[in-house]
Amino acid sequence: MKNLVKQQPFANRVSAVPQSFIREILKVAADPSVLSFAGGLPNPEFFPVRELEESAAKVFQTQGAKALQYTVTEGLHPLREYISGRYRKRYGLIIPPDEILITTGSQQALDLIGKLFINPGDNVLLERPTYLGALQCLSMFQPTFKEVLLEDDGLSIDQLEAQLWSNPIKLFYGIPNFQNPTGIRYSLQKRLDAVALFRKYETLVVEDDPYGEILFDEKPLPLLYSYLPDQTILLGSFSKTIAPGLRLGWMIANKTIIQKASIMKQASDLHSGNLAQCILLQFLQDYDFDNHIAKIKNAYRIQRNNMLECIGAYFPRSVQYTKPEGGMFTWVKIPEHITSRMLLERSMKEKIIFVPGDTFYASDPDAHTLRLNYSNVDVYKMRNAMRILGKLI
Amino acid sequence: MKNLVKQQPFANRVSAVPQSFIREILKVAADPSVLSFAGGLPNPEFFPVRELEESAAKVFQTQGAKALQYTVTEGLHPLREYISGRYRKRYGLIIPPDEILITTGSQQALDLIGKLFINPGDNVLLERPTYLGALQCLSMFQPTFKEVLLEDDGLSIDQLEAQLWSNPIKLFYGIPNFQNPTGIRYSLQKRLDAVALFRKYETLVVEDDPYGEILFDEKPLPLLYSYLPDQTILLGSFSKTIAPGLRLGWMIANKTIIQKASIMKQASDLHSGNLAQCILLQFLQDYDFDNHIAKIKNAYRIQRNNMLECIGAYFPRSVQYTKPEGGMFTWVKIPEHITSRMLLERSMKEKIIFVPGDTFYASDPDAHTLRLNYSNVDVYKMRNAMRILGKLI
Repeated sequence: MKNLVKQQPFANRVSAVPQSFIREILKVAADPSVLSFAGGLPNPEFFPVRELEESAAKVFQTQGAKALQYTVTEGLHPLREYISGRYRKRYGLIIPPDEILITTGSQQALDLIGKLFINPGDNVLLERPTYLGALQCLSMFQPTFKEVLLEDDGLSIDQLEAQLWSNPIKLFYGIPNFQNPTGIRYSLQKRLDAVALFRKYETLVVEDDPYGEILFDEKPLPLLYSYLPDQTILLGSFSKTIAPGLRLGWMIANKTIIQKASIMKQASDLHSGNLAQCILLQFLQDYDFDNHIAKIKNAYRIQRNNMLECIGAYFPRSVQYTKPEGGMFTWVKIPEHITSRMLLERSMKEKIIFVPGDTFYASDPDAHTLRLNYSNVDVYKMRNAMRILGKLI
Repeated sequence: MKNLVKQQPFANRVSAVPQSFIREILKVAADPSVLSFAGGLPNPEFFPVRELEESAAKVFQTQGAKALQYTVTEGLHPLREYISGRYRKRYGLIIPPDEILITTGSQQALDLIGKLFINPGDNVLLERPTYLGALQCLSMFQPTFKEVLLEDDGLSIDQLEAQLWSNPIKLFYGIPNFQNPTGIRYSLQKRLDAVALFRKYETLVVEDDPYGEILFDEKPLPLLYSYLPDQTILLGSFSKTIAPGLRLGWMIANKTIIQKASIMKQASDLHSGNLAQCILLQFLQDYDFDNHIAKIKNAYRIQRNNMLECIGAYFPRSVQYTKPEGGMFTWVKIPEHITSRMLLERSMKEKIIFVPGDTFYASDPDAHTLRLNYSNVDVYKMRNAMRILGKLI
């Protein structure tokens, strides 16, 4: 019997996964003369390079070969204890380390969640718009996506109830703090309203929180997890606070879920980088994390202010935009007579790039939106580029 | 509508994945008074700790923040060039770097292959017995496993032809060099015979080669990939030659497959550790890899010799075992009147552990087999433990 190499080798899930348009744009961004608002990159100026260098040296000297051997799938216990302690300090939450799984970036947590929960055809509820990486990852598991509109202060509660009422939802995925791509933070009221519905409908909630530490005022709003610890999977990451190149994030959930997620993780990559975990842990033990984050917040706040000022000064009045209180992005709606792809085509000639917003929709994309990143743009160059962008609009 | 948190939250694939018995045994191995033949661990004595320490310091000094930022999904280009060059040097193979994808250990390559190729119910052909991590990983994609007996010199060609003839096979997965768990290497004749069948039936071949560099004589046999580059996916790893804690391996295949695998990888963990890749690359540029591997080979050869001598001296004549010419394992068949689980129960009381062979079968396990690891056992302690094991048998 002839086999399948030539005829139709790929699995059905492959065609379900959208390719990232961002990747294509980022290839343009490699040209140093291009000014990019496109990336989702933290600013490398604030990576603790010297501190990590010293941490690495210490790891090699004190642990040597141990840091280079295979390690446990769940991740280094002291690192999980550190994360537990951080939630206790920031939110008063008691999370035992064995309810924490270290992942290869929080992107991997999405893959593990897909593996754990999604059968083909299951309904997965998303914010509209949402994080492209979640669209890509969850698509591999061939769910049916349902959407809830994101308003300026969070989910449309009417739409959320309508969705939960009319469909069996396998899980909800959202980013309540400084969402990617919009920069929106759910208000306290919206959190409470959403939580009441999730409780009523017994919905599994995936709360992705990579930007929660990067908030510009001092008071974090309570996590959805705080209200619904038994039915929430909370994701975190060191990529935005320390460095993405370590590929370290985490997943928090009840013991049953973490146990099963560990089996899936073992099958997926055995464990996350041992050396990277050791270096990160050494850094967290030896340096003041709050102090480090304060620097990032301060810098990003200035960059955010600068960008909002520029929008106010150079963009037409008809443009709407979000005013993020944290994170790395603002979200812009441009007038109906131009699409953001048209705008990008024009702006690329001026060596300015951004991500057209249509990329971030599970269905029926809004062609008149764009995402602007402010965390990784030089303040002086930003002003000039924003002026040109405003003129083009 | 009430949702699914409490009723049946997990996806169907979850119950298909076997938990690793090895993990459970390895918890016992954490006790330092236990002598373990159980692990699949390389010997940390031969990790190039000082060299990696210097490489890390150099990376921080010369690249700094760049090594800590996000990077491309495919992996660092010079690292892919290095791997390409290594195959040219060892086998005379010309593999362009864009046919190489860096993975988070070669375990991740299995996950990507499952994602790319396996629809539920597809037939996947395995060696009998086979690598437990492949059983675990591929199970997530709910294939039907078919098996081909492994004889002392490789696949049973009759069984291989029977399987290929009677079933549409989505892919074959095998470890031709110093297989895990058996230590068997396919002979040249068996390679040629298998290749002829794979060509005839147009079978997609996954050739897993983590141990290929650790060969005790000097002449590697040609890879299946050399004969069938268009229909083979070749996997490699730095875990056995440099250090597993870096979590770096690779996948080689034609451009179409690598392109699609990159999209799957992006969805799965964005990219493998950037810092780890930079450190590894620096090591490969600054030090003599062949010289490093020669040390490992030499040490493992002595350990292998020691173990085979002990089996000859202390195990009953009725015991059969493989005589590996590379890699880290030997495979033992004990008499029918005892099972390896019974033996393990007894040997654990003597603080000696190993992995019962039944763990390594997709179906119908042979209860009278066991895997012994010799790479990570102290030579002096080995002798005494083997004497006790022989007595227990």
